[in-house]
Amino acid sequence: MQVKTNLDLNQVEITSDFWKHYRELIVKEVLPYQWQVMNDEADINIADDPQNNGQTKNSHAVANLKIAAGKMKGHHFGFPFQDTDVYKWLEAAAYSFSYHPNPDLKKITDNLVDLIAEAQDPDGYLSTEFQIDMPDRKFKRLQQSHELYTMGHYIEAGVAYYQATGNGKALEIAEKMADCIGANFGLEPGKIPGYDGHPEIELALSRLYEATHEERFLKLAHYFLQQRGQDPAFFEKQLKADGLGADRDLIPGMRDFPRNYYQAAEPIVDQKTADGHAVRVVYLCTGMAYVARLTGDQALLTACHRFWNDIVKRRMYITGNIGSTTTGEAFTYDYDLPNDTMYGETCASVGMAFFARQMLNLEAKGEYSDILEKELFNGALSGISLDGKHFFYVNPLEADPAASKGNPGKSHILTRRADWFGCACCPSNVARLIASVDQYLYAIEDDTILSHQFIANHATFDQEITVDQTNNFPWDGAIHYEIQNPNRSNFKFGIRIPNWSQNNYQLSVNGEAIKAQLVNGIVYIPVTGPTLTIDLTLDMQVTLMRSSNRVEADFGKVAVQRGPLVYAAESADNQTPLWAYRLNNQSVATTQFESQLLDGVTIVKLPAQKVAVESENAELYQPIQQAPMNWEATTLTMVPYYAWANRENGQMAVWQHYQD
Amino acid sequence: MQVKTNLDLNQVEITSDFWKHYRELIVKEVLPYQWQVMNDEADINIADDPQNNGQTKNSHAVANLKIAAGKMKGHHFGFPFQDTDVYKWLEAAAYSFSYHPNPDLKKITDNLVDLIAEAQDPDGYLSTEFQIDMPDRKFKRLQQSHELYTMGHYIEAGVAYYQATGNGKALEIAEKMADCIGANFGLEPGKIPGYDGHPEIELALSRLYEATHEERFLKLAHYFLQQRGQDPAFFEKQLKADGLGADRDLIPGMRDFPRNYYQAAEPIVDQKTADGHAVRVVYLCTGMAYVARLTGDQALLTACHRFWNDIVKRRMYITGNIGSTTTGEAFTYDYDLPNDTMYGETCASVGMAFFARQMLNLEAKGEYSDILEKELFNGALSGISLDGKHFFYVNPLEADPAASKGNPGKSHILTRRADWFGCACCPSNVARLIASVDQYLYAIEDDTILSHQFIANHATFDQEITVDQTNNFPWDGAIHYEIQNPNRSNFKFGIRIPNWSQNNYQLSVNGEAIKAQLVNGIVYIPVTGPTLTIDLTLDMQVTLMRSSNRVEADFGKVAVQRGPLVYAAESADNQTPLWAYRLNNQSVATTQFESQLLDGVTIVKLPAQKVAVESENAELYQPIQQAPMNWEATTLTMVPYYAWANRENGQMAVWQHYQD
Ligand SMILES: [Zn+2]
Ligand SMILES: [Zn+2]
Repeated sequence: MQVKTNLDLNQVEITSDFWKHYRELIVKEVLPYQWQVMNDEADINIADDPQNNGQTKNSHAVANLKIAAGKMKGHHFGFPFQDTDVYKWLEAAAYSFSYHPNPDLKKITDNLVDLIAEAQDPDGYLSTEFQIDMPDRKFKRLQQSHELYTMGHYIEAGVAYYQATGNGKALEIAEKMADCIGANFGLEPGKIPGYDGHPEIELALSRLYEATHEERFLKLAHYFLQQRGQDPAFFEKQLKADGLGADRDLIPGMRDFPRNYYQAAEPIVDQKTADGHAVRVVYLCTGMAYVARLTGDQALLTACHRFWNDIVKRRMYITGNIGSTTTGEAFTYDYDLPNDTMYGETCASVGMAFFARQMLNLEAKGEYSDILEKELFNGALSGISLDGKHFFYVNPLEADPAASKGNPGKSHILTRRADWFGCACCPSNVARLIASVDQYLYAIEDDTILSHQFIANHATFDQEITVDQTNNFPWDGAIHYEIQNPNRSNFKFGIRIPNWSQNNYQLSVNGEAIKAQLVNGIVYIPVTGPTLTIDLTLDMQVTLMRSSNRVEADFGKVAVQRGPLVYAAESADNQTPLWAYRLNNQSVATTQFESQLLDGVTIVKLPAQKVAVESENAELYQPIQQAPMNWEATTLTMVPYYAWANRENGQMAVWQHYQD
Repeated sequence: MQVKTNLDLNQVEITSDFWKHYRELIVKEVLPYQWQVMNDEADINIADDPQNNGQTKNSHAVANLKIAAGKMKGHHFGFPFQDTDVYKWLEAAAYSFSYHPNPDLKKITDNLVDLIAEAQDPDGYLSTEFQIDMPDRKFKRLQQSHELYTMGHYIEAGVAYYQATGNGKALEIAEKMADCIGANFGLEPGKIPGYDGHPEIELALSRLYEATHEERFLKLAHYFLQQRGQDPAFFEKQLKADGLGADRDLIPGMRDFPRNYYQAAEPIVDQKTADGHAVRVVYLCTGMAYVARLTGDQALLTACHRFWNDIVKRRMYITGNIGSTTTGEAFTYDYDLPNDTMYGETCASVGMAFFARQMLNLEAKGEYSDILEKELFNGALSGISLDGKHFFYVNPLEADPAASKGNPGKSHILTRRADWFGCACCPSNVARLIASVDQYLYAIEDDTILSHQFIANHATFDQEITVDQTNNFPWDGAIHYEIQNPNRSNFKFGIRIPNWSQNNYQLSVNGEAIKAQLVNGIVYIPVTGPTLTIDLTLDMQVTLMRSSNRVEADFGKVAVQRGPLVYAAESADNQTPLWAYRLNNQSVATTQFESQLLDGVTIVKLPAQKVAVESENAELYQPIQQAPMNWEATTLTMVPYYAWANRENGQMAVWQHYQD
């Protein structure tokens, strides 16, 4: 549990070149572009997009709010949760003000808050599809309606916007929403004894509680977590009452998903495995971790651990991506991690970062920071292009344009990021993560400041304590800290040693090498004097990684990792097919920072072997003794996974054949 | 072209133990069981079957005919082509009479022919769904209706039944049908300038022509082949005229398949690749090969070669299975041969055998016989269980019950054969192939008798020529021929040397070793004297096969083949997971015939290596240098692919990891 501390974090300024670049991209490209798209003013055509999810028109998300506010005529367009695109964008904008004040943008966002307030019903309800086109069906089809999910996203945005700008109206909208939900949901007579098909409101209400300290919000969050799955037939009963005709569905096909798709087959504390829609799972887990910390509910904490272990030890790709199947954008079963038919939704990696952050607020354990780092530098970051205007919904670990075009089981795999999506949950989600990355660097417990990420920053704490972390991470492993402690407070400074460096790192304090004990992956250094310098050298050797041999898809293969970055081979650097290469246990890598490539990346070159591609007229099958594989020495060039698909369209592969 | 010959084949008696066993199974188990099922008298419940195709009741196929004949009241049930289950069964029964006369069965089949005659409309039309429930929609929605496909299957059955029993009514029904089709289809005014969504009528009309020598049937077959794809919008126009409401579809979702799913995007002589529904492709190709031979149409022959090469050189599994995706049961693109998400429909392998047989009637080339053998001993035969009462629709090369249950992309892969299917095209199709296998052993051209299969038999030809082939194939490679030629006719006896034995075989004639030139994979031995003995010894060494390195799914793997049989590893004989094994280039196999196992099979044992499965709590990813793979020596036991899934439910894998 987080305990009161006198070390409260006041401010974090990101100084990392790598992250400053991305965060300025958010301000200069991502926010303006997304605002254009949501106002249907961008030069894109969603209908042309291979992943338009059946949508024929552009976003219409702002228009939906205008119609609900009575400022425009028309019908709602898009998914029931179309509003959330706007809210997540608003949340990202709010975060951006902390590092890049922007009066022009602030005008837009203040006006947007006003618009949202006008769109909100007097009782606090806000979900434009229902307000505009089916007011009689509010809260009547929660399996599909996403109403609490939608309001939850506003609540997150409203809290963030209030915290960033002091705009009281933004918070007021959120509180009214929460009270509307509280008035309608619960076990009291006349209330709905249910919950939303898509978890989100639980974590949102927790954030609202943390911002307001109003117990009712925390209780409501707790209610949703405890009630979920108590009556596994809740959704079916609602469907029946709302109508079973095919035209009654808000999202076609959703009624066919099994109960565990919605994590509603049984109470969440009884669920043994991380099943169903991956984003739903990690949003739910984030809510559980929040409420477990804020209430001390041990059953929720136990469930958090169980979900965490199942995901991280048995259901996660090496890049941090999760969701092994496109059917329901879902988890499948333990160790089922196909690289070419997978899903790996950007939102799921973003949500996994949320979950990890909340677990760190519960327990100072390096394993949470390791996964958080994995998401920040790989799985989540892959969701956005270097130009800030193209996005992945699905993040495969192997891609081939021919397969995406020619095999329907891989048609969901885009090999280039799209302008936008019919279901556009991901673009604004990765934007809000990047814009708020400063909030992911520290955890504070009792008399300990834990620095668990190597994202260079300058942070100020209570008691005039400041921490300066400088480095050239992720390209370089030299991490330097300068701690100022003018009041000579007594505290501990914890540094996570990443799992990828625990066998090889050097630590020195005030210039003197030390050996410190690792406690749950963390070294603790006592601070008493007015200044302290710490130097940590991490192992930036290129490492060939293998998976558990329970993973069929990776058996006999290796992935290439350097520091936190997983690398990918692309046909932009290598001859196709990429599967014709293999690495071996003598492969000694060379690395090189290429400032002009992909906005500056360290590339990895590995001695490898490959076979020349056979003729189209060769026999399809022949005896290997008569036709042995002709391996030739070559070099495999790899780039960081997050940066793939920013050059010419082609193949990509994370896992490489390996000969031991 | 087939040329008049004085060597006409009169009769073939199968003496092969292997095939006699299967053919008696057809008589004793398969035909009675399938008749029960089609009469809804079998103790099965299709609705329980994982692959019921949405069907909630059992077959109803005979009942549909009774209703159409006015002998029962009720509605049609099942797919529009439900009738074909009965017709293919009738065809199989007809073939069985040639080797196992069966008066009790003959009573049933004669009565069935009477029933079919009564169900037929006066104008020759017969498709019970339309007759019973939508007489106004005959021939109005050919993309989906399968009407010509259905009648084509009757025509095949009627011809076979007439030829087997002399039942004239059976042939008359077929002729009336063909004339009904001729009266309705063609380019003349008032006729439909179209064709069926599912090819079949083309090959059926060709068979009818061969049985009757009525030119109009051949012309009609030729018309269908020439017209197909001339107006690529033909189906869409019909759909529009018949109604675009969702309730108008005969099979939901079929309208969404692209034109090339139906091989109707362009004229078939222009089609470059074997695209679309695999069974449609090979039925179409069989029809093309028939008509090319019977008419001399060179453009059709060229198209046959193009389709053949694309399928055999770029789109076929090593077992002969075809169809790389469950979406549309279809081909995907060249070299896309995933083993665990594939389709490999039993009907597609049966159809490929048809295609190969017709190509052999055009050209004496071993490559056709090689593929025919591959289908007979692997891909097609896998469709039926050893007990004759269970069937595969989908034939994967890799299966895992956990994957079929847990990953929706593999849910179409059954790991045990089913009692029956909602769409039950496959069970009777494999039955008719086995029951007619005697028709697949010889090809005759000019003065040559070509023996292209090593299925032991006794055959009689014109001029009192007899051929006795004796062997214990596929378990043994010693093939012995005794040719009696009492009239001292001059002819050539051709024997295909299988592609798997061309580097190692011995041939002796009358006890004397000879070296004969291979012409297109065939050795030709002149016959002039009254008797001749030939001994051929084929290479039955266990061989590790690799695929073209253009096939990603098989890269770094080998398949195990012995003679014509592809082998599979099953968890009944080996520890799971099967992917934890690897073979190497020193693996020297031992073989052993196990008479009590799987009705008698030669098993293959290979020295191999495997790794012990890691703990569930092991790290999912770790550096391979710190955690190398611990290979242990072991043995991999394999059984013939056709015999898999006849023991306990478990994993199966054809392709094995390989270390060179
Ligand atoms: Zn998303
Ligand atoms: Zn079939």
